[in-house]
Amino acid sequence: MPQFLNTQDADFETQFTALLGAKREDSPDVDAVVAEIIADVRARGDAAVLELTAQFDRLELTPETLRFSEAEIDAFCAEVSDEERAALELAAERIRAYHSRQMPSDDSWADANGATLGWRWSPVSAAGLYVPGGLASYPSSVLMNAIPAKVAGVERLAIVVPTPDGIANPLVLLAARLAGVDEIYRIGGAQAVAALAYGTDTIAPVDKITGPGNAFVAAAKRRVFGKVGIDMIAGPSEILVIADKDNNPDWIALDLLSQAEHDESAQSILITDDNGFGKAVAQAVEKRLETLERRAIAGASWRDFGAVITVDDLDQAAALSNRIAPEHLELCVADPDALSDKITHAGAIFLGQFTPEAIGDYVGGPNHVLPTARSARFSSGLSVMDFLKRTTLSKMTLESLRAIGPAAATLAKSESLEAHGLSVLARLEALNQK
Amino acid sequence: MPQFLNTQDADFETQFTALLGAKREDSPDVDAVVAEIIADVRARGDAAVLELTAQFDRLELTPETLRFSEAEIDAFCAEVSDEERAALELAAERIRAYHSRQMPSDDSWADANGATLGWRWSPVSAAGLYVPGGLASYPSSVLMNAIPAKVAGVERLAIVVPTPDGIANPLVLLAARLAGVDEIYRIGGAQAVAALAYGTDTIAPVDKITGPGNAFVAAAKRRVFGKVGIDMIAGPSEILVIADKDNNPDWIALDLLSQAEHDESAQSILITDDNGFGKAVAQAVEKRLETLERRAIAGASWRDFGAVITVDDLDQAAALSNRIAPEHLELCVADPDALSDKITHAGAIFLGQFTPEAIGDYVGGPNHVLPTARSARFSSGLSVMDFLKRTTLSKMTLESLRAIGPAAATLAKSESLEAHGLSVLARLEALNQK
Repeated sequence: MPQFLNTQDADFETQFTALLGAKREDSPDVDAVVAEIIADVRARGDAAVLELTAQFDRLELTPETLRFSEAEIDAFCAEVSDEERAALELAAERIRAYHSRQMPSDDSWADANGATLGWRWSPVSAAGLYVPGGLASYPSSVLMNAIPAKVAGVERLAIVVPTPDGIANPLVLLAARLAGVDEIYRIGGAQAVAALAYGTDTIAPVDKITGPGNAFVAAAKRRVFGKVGIDMIAGPSEILVIADKDNNPDWIALDLLSQAEHDESAQSILITDDNGFGKAVAQAVEKRLETLERRAIAGASWRDFGAVITVDDLDQAAALSNRIAPEHLELCVADPDALSDKITHAGAIFLGQFTPEAIGDYVGGPNHVLPTARSARFSSGLSVMDFLKRTTLSKMTLESLRAIGPAAATLAKSESLEAHGLSVLARLEALNQK
Repeated sequence: MPQFLNTQDADFETQFTALLGAKREDSPDVDAVVAEIIADVRARGDAAVLELTAQFDRLELTPETLRFSEAEIDAFCAEVSDEERAALELAAERIRAYHSRQMPSDDSWADANGATLGWRWSPVSAAGLYVPGGLASYPSSVLMNAIPAKVAGVERLAIVVPTPDGIANPLVLLAARLAGVDEIYRIGGAQAVAALAYGTDTIAPVDKITGPGNAFVAAAKRRVFGKVGIDMIAGPSEILVIADKDNNPDWIALDLLSQAEHDESAQSILITDDNGFGKAVAQAVEKRLETLERRAIAGASWRDFGAVITVDDLDQAAALSNRIAPEHLELCVADPDALSDKITHAGAIFLGQFTPEAIGDYVGGPNHVLPTARSARFSSGLSVMDFLKRTTLSKMTLESLRAIGPAAATLAKSESLEAHGLSVLARLEALNQK
């Protein structure tokens, strides 16, 4: 059974704080191993990548077979059923449409003194996307990472995906093709991250690496950060559902379980203003857990980290939600828009009872790579912005340099940076002599 | 003397690659010490902060005197000269005007099936800004960090600034006041970063920490990342000037020196299409180095990391610049706008000979916190975006769930996530029975 909390309880604050602070993940310390792997790939390039792939994935490759050929990709794509292809195409189309609207605008204007100011956005030249192999090899994540990169205008997009024992997921390859990925390499682990960051004879280096991975991949991303850009290091998934009593308990139970089934460290929380409804949902969860395919995982997550919180009213629900800063937030209430206006920190909000979070995982359009572990307090989900950077632009005229140059020289002097000041003053002197 | 390179030289590529890869900074490994300090502050809060401040800053404080009082700030602000105050006010006004234009828009629209999609931006609730003490205590950096936070709508903005031996910089306090900072604490080092991230009895925790600092501060920011957001970890400053022969060599020399005087690890590079002009600039640098206040620092930087590169034409200059991806780029050429269009990676561009980079450090308007060490390939300068986060919004109707729900269920099945599929199918079944 999950925890049951009630804001009426005397020790609610203590319990809620404990829930907020619950440590859900013990990452193994693989940093030393990863450092060695990265150093090896930097030193020996392809040779190291091939040896490590043979060792970890039991797969013998050559520089020529590191990359999937177009013919191989064709063959894998042909294995995908029409139904699955149509679903992936619908998802790709909706994700592309949503992310296209995120493209920011350049700007340029003249100030009162005639100086031109502005900025310009430009895409990262080359990006690499890590796609896990095996069970957690999700074609939906390929779309969610690759499409924003291509919408942003990334010219070269490479995927690395391990194929343990040579087994590839045809849906992952089709998703990559639909998203417009340029290169697909059948490698994984820290060695793949190192190859993307530093390059080998076969794999050109990229400027940014995104995508989920295990502890080795996460440690490798942290280590190459600075040499290349990385996206967030995602923790286990979370959902918070705020639901009033006018909901079907089974629907809400399934929404909670759709996070819980990801991972034993996932967390599903229900906040309701009706104690009886909370109990009904908990019962519905238990019933579904009797038959759910991934009941071992989902059951452990729900038992260890699940919670049902009863509040006095929805304002209290919003306040608690803002302290949780959930990755996913469902608002299954009569007026979800009004409640949404009170939410200050959340990765993604799903409004109304006809918007199960799973829609957002696949076909809604918004990204499913979202800030976990309360980081929605200060960060956002993946977007086209992750594949763009902004260059600021300034162009002074004679008049504007005369108008604001002296202030710059004054501040430079205050900061004891003489050359800064002289670079302005030398120009002003020469101009004043004209 | 700096390095002289010429694209006509047979070994140019080797020399240029070496220049690109030059390691300019040896950060001392202070991670173990920093880990101890953070653990101490987490465990003992104010008591640890006070002890460490006594130890490192030779300053005895109490919980009551950790924070500058309004009366103290008033007294320090009164020490600032009218000229300096006016310069700071002009800078603040221009920085505020520029960053106000950066505020991104919310969006919301209905798709073809009637689903409502969109996103909403919201500010980080509380941010902390690290301001170094001593020589590198720059009031301009206070403005550059604090104003974007306040423009973004950050409700609570706290500054930590060490005051070794009790000595404070009045301009830093005035800059904080002009920027609308809410709290100023006279502490620094890793202990100040830990206090901001985890909170103490006196200092409430923040959600995001920005601002420059020494190796201890940088290591502490890396360690608290995840618990809070951080900005980039800045490396030593760099400038690239692309200049044709129709420039005053002394002006260009001063621009190069205004980076070099920051730090012995700073880097100043000139690219010119006129070999003679390059030599003239190098001579002008030597002449200025005879008298410059910070000639020891600037001279070392110019000697160890400076370079003058002669190219055949400006297209070649743009191509090399894009490989360097400079933090600051000056375009002192006849048509700077045309050359700017060829630049794909740069933190900030200063167009034309009347826009010395020092203008951008103080009063131009754009931010002076910019990506160093070639990271302009994948990242941007500080902006209001660093203090905002985006929540995505989805609201399905019955019709839209019917239209796209089955595809979500198909993909969930492909990914073996049964509860994901059931959360959609259960709703569709119930609706179909209606």
